[in-house]
Amino acid sequence: MTMRDFSTDHSALALNTASLGHNLDGHGAGWSPERVIDACAARGFGSIVFWRREIGSRAVEIGERVRAAGLSVAGLCRTPFLVGAEATDRQAVIDGAKASIDMAAGLGAAVLTIVVGGVHPGTKGTAESLKIVTDRVGEIAPYAAQRNVRLALEPLNPVYAGNRSCLVTLRDALDICDAVGAPSLGVAVDVYHVWWDRGIDVQMQRAGPERIFGYHLCDWLADTTDVLLDRGMMGDGVADLKAIRAGVEGAGYAGPCEVEIFSANNWWKRDPGAVLDVMVERFRTLC
Amino acid sequence: MTMRDFSTDHSALALNTASLGHNLDGHGAGWSPERVIDACAARGFGSIVFWRREIGSRAVEIGERVRAAGLSVAGLCRTPFLVGAEATDRQAVIDGAKASIDMAAGLGAAVLTIVVGGVHPGTKGTAESLKIVTDRVGEIAPYAAQRNVRLALEPLNPVYAGNRSCLVTLRDALDICDAVGAPSLGVAVDVYHVWWDRGIDVQMQRAGPERIFGYHLCDWLADTTDVLLDRGMMGDGVADLKAIRAGVEGAGYAGPCEVEIFSANNWWKRDPGAVLDVMVERFRTLC
Repeated sequence: MTMRDFSTDHSALALNTASLGHNLDGHGAGWSPERVIDACAARGFGSIVFWRREIGSRAVEIGERVRAAGLSVAGLCRTPFLVGAEATDRQAVIDGAKASIDMAAGLGAAVLTIVVGGVHPGTKGTAESLKIVTDRVGEIAPYAAQRNVRLALEPLNPVYAGNRSCLVTLRDALDICDAVGAPSLGVAVDVYHVWWDRGIDVQMQRAGPERIFGYHLCDWLADTTDVLLDRGMMGDGVADLKAIRAGVEGAGYAGPCEVEIFSANNWWKRDPGAVLDVMVERFRTLC
Repeated sequence: MTMRDFSTDHSALALNTASLGHNLDGHGAGWSPERVIDACAARGFGSIVFWRREIGSRAVEIGERVRAAGLSVAGLCRTPFLVGAEATDRQAVIDGAKASIDMAAGLGAAVLTIVVGGVHPGTKGTAESLKIVTDRVGEIAPYAAQRNVRLALEPLNPVYAGNRSCLVTLRDALDICDAVGAPSLGVAVDVYHVWWDRGIDVQMQRAGPERIFGYHLCDWLADTTDVLLDRGMMGDGVADLKAIRAGVEGAGYAGPCEVEIFSANNWWKRDPGAVLDVMVERFRTLC
């Protein structure tokens, strides 16, 4: 099998706007979506992934602006948590998820990411929480299909299992996909979250191209100082990026490669244009 | 299968002295090994696990002191890293590991724990590093057998994969055990590191009683503030302690349950005697 050659064509490159610090906690340069779109178009990015907080009521307008610039909206981050301390009211959770599906549909986003939330109050371990996730994903999947939005369950690094994602492996994500059985439901593979897992190749084969809805890039810094906001640029860490891409492409994935770097003390402090330039260079040579 | 009943007999309880802050970075009350031994004996602990820094050249003396108090030395923490940035000189690594085996033998410690170290310089991902671990463990295992010391490979939470332990799952630990094939080599199961892993029951069955050399207790705090020094006391977090113990005992383990709580801002600031009292109470009622 031949991997895609990004050195000659980097149109698979997608920007996740988190890499520019968007407006999270005041980080980043505060570029408008329009400015981000133009900067990505100028550098040959193929697509962009936004966060809900950047979109507000302008979903349709921003989606059209992206496509007018020759790009696509690869995704939207993300549903509110489906389980955990912030998600105790089932109906409110379902309603919130449906509202984010509506926003994704308005944007024309190919995929809506799901970060499921942590261990549910009153329970121990992840088993019960994953059952709740399965129930709630099963409830929203038909609505997503109606709106032509695909839902990507994203397992997070196990360090987040307590309060952000009781879903921590591709294996468990695919178990939920199997249980729900909806074509609109698949998984996102994020290097930051799975790089340590020696079982991912088997699971990516299990998923196949029809269930891998996204591939997220960054790097794991060996001496990371903060598990939330100290992600590395590709090449600066210890993840085996080529091997992981070989696995995901070997499983049939041929979609966008989305760079998502939360980096409060490094990349978010730099000029966004310069960050995008480095991203393109690293993507063409190291990913 | 019936689990052991700790409410009527807590002699399986072992103190890992890290829970009292030993002398790490100036934390803890600075109790001598002798004072720790007496405090554990007074409360019915069955055994103690020390760290090398506490032992120095007094291994034989301290071991005898423990046994004179009616306890045993359940283990010694730990070999120096076998791989990673601090372990580039193979012979120095082997020599250092053998010296820690000698210390364990002098103490009469049942088990010497191995935390393997992070991703090796010049490599990416964990595969190459795990091969180096396998080579080096294979080199020291016969020496450990000669000295009557069992070696326990301890997989750490994946958050440490970069710089502390490229070994992050029981599955990978048992793969190394299989590759080395030495009866002196097994695994340690630590709640903090494996609580999120839905594959552990299968792996504990695979390990069996002849390869599970230790079971470590603490809790994972849902909103942990520091992945190194903010472990929870049993019952304060979200790990399913009963379910994990059912798995480890279901696999045939009947050895010590070692409480190991790194907690710079909470338990290490309390009176060690009071900490031991809480530990006994939680162990008898919640573990």
